[in-house]
Amino acid sequence: MNAVNKPIIVLVRPQLGENIGKAARAMLNFGLTEMRLVNPRDGWPNPSAGPAAAGADILLDRAKVYASTADAVADCEYVYATTVRKRGVTKPVVSPDEAAHLFHTEAGRHAVLFGREAAGLETEDVALARRILTVPINPEFGSLNLAQAVILVAYEWARRLRETSGAASELVQPTAEEEWLPPAPQAELEGLIDHFETLLAPRGYFLPEARSETTRRNLRSMLTKPGWNHLEVRTMRGILTTLGRKPRDDAVKG
Amino acid sequence: MNAVNKPIIVLVRPQLGENIGKAARAMLNFGLTEMRLVNPRDGWPNPSAGPAAAGADILLDRAKVYASTADAVADCEYVYATTVRKRGVTKPVVSPDEAAHLFHTEAGRHAVLFGREAAGLETEDVALARRILTVPINPEFGSLNLAQAVILVAYEWARRLRETSGAASELVQPTAEEEWLPPAPQAELEGLIDHFETLLAPRGYFLPEARSETTRRNLRSMLTKPGWNHLEVRTMRGILTTLGRKPRDDAVKG
Repeated sequence: MNAVNKPIIVLVRPQLGENIGKAARAMLNFGLTEMRLVNPRDGWPNPSAGPAAAGADILLDRAKVYASTADAVADCEYVYATTVRKRGVTKPVVSPDEAAHLFHTEAGRHAVLFGREAAGLETEDVALARRILTVPINPEFGSLNLAQAVILVAYEWARRLRETSGAASELVQPTAEEEWLPPAPQAELEGLIDHFETLLAPRGYFLPEARSETTRRNLRSMLTKPGWNHLEVRTMRGILTTLGRKPRDDAVKG
Repeated sequence: MNAVNKPIIVLVRPQLGENIGKAARAMLNFGLTEMRLVNPRDGWPNPSAGPAAAGADILLDRAKVYASTADAVADCEYVYATTVRKRGVTKPVVSPDEAAHLFHTEAGRHAVLFGREAAGLETEDVALARRILTVPINPEFGSLNLAQAVILVAYEWARRLRETSGAASELVQPTAEEEWLPPAPQAELEGLIDHFETLLAPRGYFLPEARSETTRRNLRSMLTKPGWNHLEVRTMRGILTTLGRKPRDDAVKG
């Protein structure tokens, strides 16, 4: 990979404009420039954000607003959900330094989700992510604010960039480029999940209703895990289309 | 060195009590506990510090106040002067991660000096230091506040502590054992692949015959990639069984 890969910082339902500004400032200190906002509580633009950005207004001017987290990451190959503590989810957990390593070594668009102040991310936001980014903090005193969580991610990105651009990189990289493709963008993964659901629902797979949500979450989590690339997602969709058909009597067996 | 070596955070002539509280909070997030204050502008204790510390009051209660920077570091073997940019001084310059490495490897008391908001350290404070600790920030936009500079030093100290204490990397593996299962045994994977083939063949998926081998290889490769565990393989087989059924008219949709 030649170009520098910058993660996109996605603030999900942020509350105070001031904190959005501080997050922008934290980002720009270490050279991150793309911010996305999902449903900011007080609308956008927000007059309180600019002063808190302390000169990082350009990030705010360029910030795009989305109606849902899924929309905000639709074009991203790698999605990380930031939490300060581990959650009961079966996804890989990475620290900020490990995440930074991945930003620089995995070609594709990386997006890091940050939840709103205090409450953090909702379960359905976390469900979109391929990985959990956890800042390991003092178990007896965890009190990171939004801009601090953002600055640690930005700092590690810059630190790893210096490391990798300085000395010869010891990082493992796929060798033959033509044999390796990044995971499909999130929108394609969503299409695949929809396809499964569309076929499964009329066959009663999501019954009983009381278990439906858990069943859907498990399905999503299982399909998110592989990191299938564009071709693989397309192949799986072809399989689903085929499975939707009736068996043909004249087909060659085996 | 056996004991954990924690650097002492020294705030030199800090102005706002609120910023002292925020620095304490930043420290405690990563387990640093000793703060020293040199001539705080508004005296000490400062009623604005407590609320900003958000529960890290114990650090403030224990903070010692000194009349000069020299007094504050008199018992310290290693003194670092923090600056956001390099100065024209002939001292070794270290980054936060290099400093953290030194905290853990050089036995003795380490003190890190932070200057007052905006203005930073005076030349005579820097003169006391053995080393310059510089946070490498965006040369076109440097706007770290006091608590952010402190949190980066504290974060790096904790990160290096995990590294040196041999904490296994969590990279690409969830930690809690009950939440993580190894990939299913090969026999289960074979069972899954067979199941796919059994459903797909009579629907003509492996036609034309000339492409059949490649199609099977792609299918196998795609299903091998995820490393699904026992439960996930079982779930996928349940999905296949469901897809083999006809849609039910009475099924609850979506």
